[in-house]
Amino acid sequence: MSDAVSIVELGPRDGLQNEAVALDVATRAAFVRALAAAGLRRIEAGAFVRPDRVPQMAGSDQLCSTLTADAALLGAGVRLSALVPNLKGLERAVAAGVREVAVFPAASETFSRRNLNQGVDEALASAAEVCAAATRQGLAVRGYVSTAFGCPYEGPVPVAAVIRVCEHLLAAGVHEVAVSDTIGVAHPGQVRDVLSAMLTAVPRERLALHFHDTRGTALANVLVALDAGVRTFDACAGGLGGCPFAPGATGNLATEDLVYMLQGLGLARDIDLDALVEASAAIEEAIGHPLPSRCYRATLASRRVRSR
Amino acid sequence: MSDAVSIVELGPRDGLQNEAVALDVATRAAFVRALAAAGLRRIEAGAFVRPDRVPQMAGSDQLCSTLTADAALLGAGVRLSALVPNLKGLERAVAAGVREVAVFPAASETFSRRNLNQGVDEALASAAEVCAAATRQGLAVRGYVSTAFGCPYEGPVPVAAVIRVCEHLLAAGVHEVAVSDTIGVAHPGQVRDVLSAMLTAVPRERLALHFHDTRGTALANVLVALDAGVRTFDACAGGLGGCPFAPGATGNLATEDLVYMLQGLGLARDIDLDALVEASAAIEEAIGHPLPSRCYRATLASRRVRSR
Repeated sequence: MSDAVSIVELGPRDGLQNEAVALDVATRAAFVRALAAAGLRRIEAGAFVRPDRVPQMAGSDQLCSTLTADAALLGAGVRLSALVPNLKGLERAVAAGVREVAVFPAASETFSRRNLNQGVDEALASAAEVCAAATRQGLAVRGYVSTAFGCPYEGPVPVAAVIRVCEHLLAAGVHEVAVSDTIGVAHPGQVRDVLSAMLTAVPRERLALHFHDTRGTALANVLVALDAGVRTFDACAGGLGGCPFAPGATGNLATEDLVYMLQGLGLARDIDLDALVEASAAIEEAIGHPLPSRCYRATLASRRVRSR
Repeated sequence: MSDAVSIVELGPRDGLQNEAVALDVATRAAFVRALAAAGLRRIEAGAFVRPDRVPQMAGSDQLCSTLTADAALLGAGVRLSALVPNLKGLERAVAAGVREVAVFPAASETFSRRNLNQGVDEALASAAEVCAAATRQGLAVRGYVSTAFGCPYEGPVPVAAVIRVCEHLLAAGVHEVAVSDTIGVAHPGQVRDVLSAMLTAVPRERLALHFHDTRGTALANVLVALDAGVRTFDACAGGLGGCPFAPGATGNLATEDLVYMLQGLGLARDIDLDALVEASAAIEEAIGHPLPSRCYRATLASRRVRSR
């Protein structure tokens, strides 16, 4: 397996979706373009969900139409994706020219029922339906597996349940499962254990890991996963997006922190950390509160010191 | 080597010393007692420096006199230490009943001259003098090695320079060198390289690592060091204390984050994380701004959710 690491940038989707303020389409398009300019090549740009329920993702149709027609992004080889909850969402994604969509079942029953209004099996059936329709139309499909390291209602989630969801998704045709620590409880000991079980069932090149930094362990978790051979990681610029299950706590792993660690390991050399900080600074201004990424904040602070 | 991990809690000293507000002795004594109640057994309580220069550490004489005479702390086996810059500071520490002191040379010349008003060799000679006087009086001595992973003025610091300072300190009689990432630039790739060189010269049971979380890598660094056999780590409750070289950035590795990760690895089981969060909550109130520890913030946020 190659040493190349792939970062899936979720700031414009998972990040902004969990911010209090809903940004307009122009601001979000500029954000995606700035992320691409920083060297990110896989960017989830929007979500084809109900705008009355998730106003932060309203206008994803227009946003994605603009971006998928952007010659500069296409020329740079940027892969844009969007979240789709069902066939209706898929239709909208296709209309907007999106070539990769993401489905998002969960590994725990209570979370699935409360957050998706479907049990796990029902959600898997619905994901398989989207998957079939998408692949028929030549789209790639990514599958998030929520609550893979813990459920806000049930607590620990058996790894067998996580593997089962992964296997269903892969059988349905997803090219990659993003095994997700939705509530940010995963720690290196657990990641080591989960991966040693999971990698017997899921090929490592089909596995992405999605960590939240809610308890500060996200980078240490990535390190363990790298040692186990995983090479794809989700992150949000600036650490955008909080944790809906612990309001006030930190959410997604910050792309800056991830890139800083990876570059120290000789990886992700094609990302321009300074340009990434610029992309985050612009979106911080727009959302109106300080972004939590440690590396982002240290970079800004060092610049202030140098410019004195 | 045993699996037992030792945490050296520096909140009352390195943490509070780098906060803007100077807390009174009673508040600091209560903090130390709360940390001991949470199970921490090595706590740096104060610094015998000039109160006109470091008002945050004023009253360390009274603070340490009170704490070293506290039967409950003694009975629990709590080891208290204090920072001493010179023989005068050592005298004050001895008078206050302190049984362990810490000296703090640096590995880079410019930092040493600007921050200690002495070159590296001069600072080592002065540390050796303190060391000799302390050991004559039966005190244990710890030696911090500042700027071991990078210097705010010189940038990268050769590992040979770090090893040289460690060897001088060990020869002078320190029982432990705390190799310190003063500016928070260390990342796992570097820690792996530095340790592989350093462990040929410094016995691992004499080595402690002192990380700052300025760029989010502190826990990942600890993980690499654990794999290399290091078992002693410095931390500050709540992530107290900023970074004087990047104002506004995060400082010391937070004890809560460290304990959360260690307990997930089956280590540090004797620390009560909830009690530690209580200790931090009281000091957060006193310093008047939110503490940055991810795990601390997530614990508080989860409590609010549960109590709704």
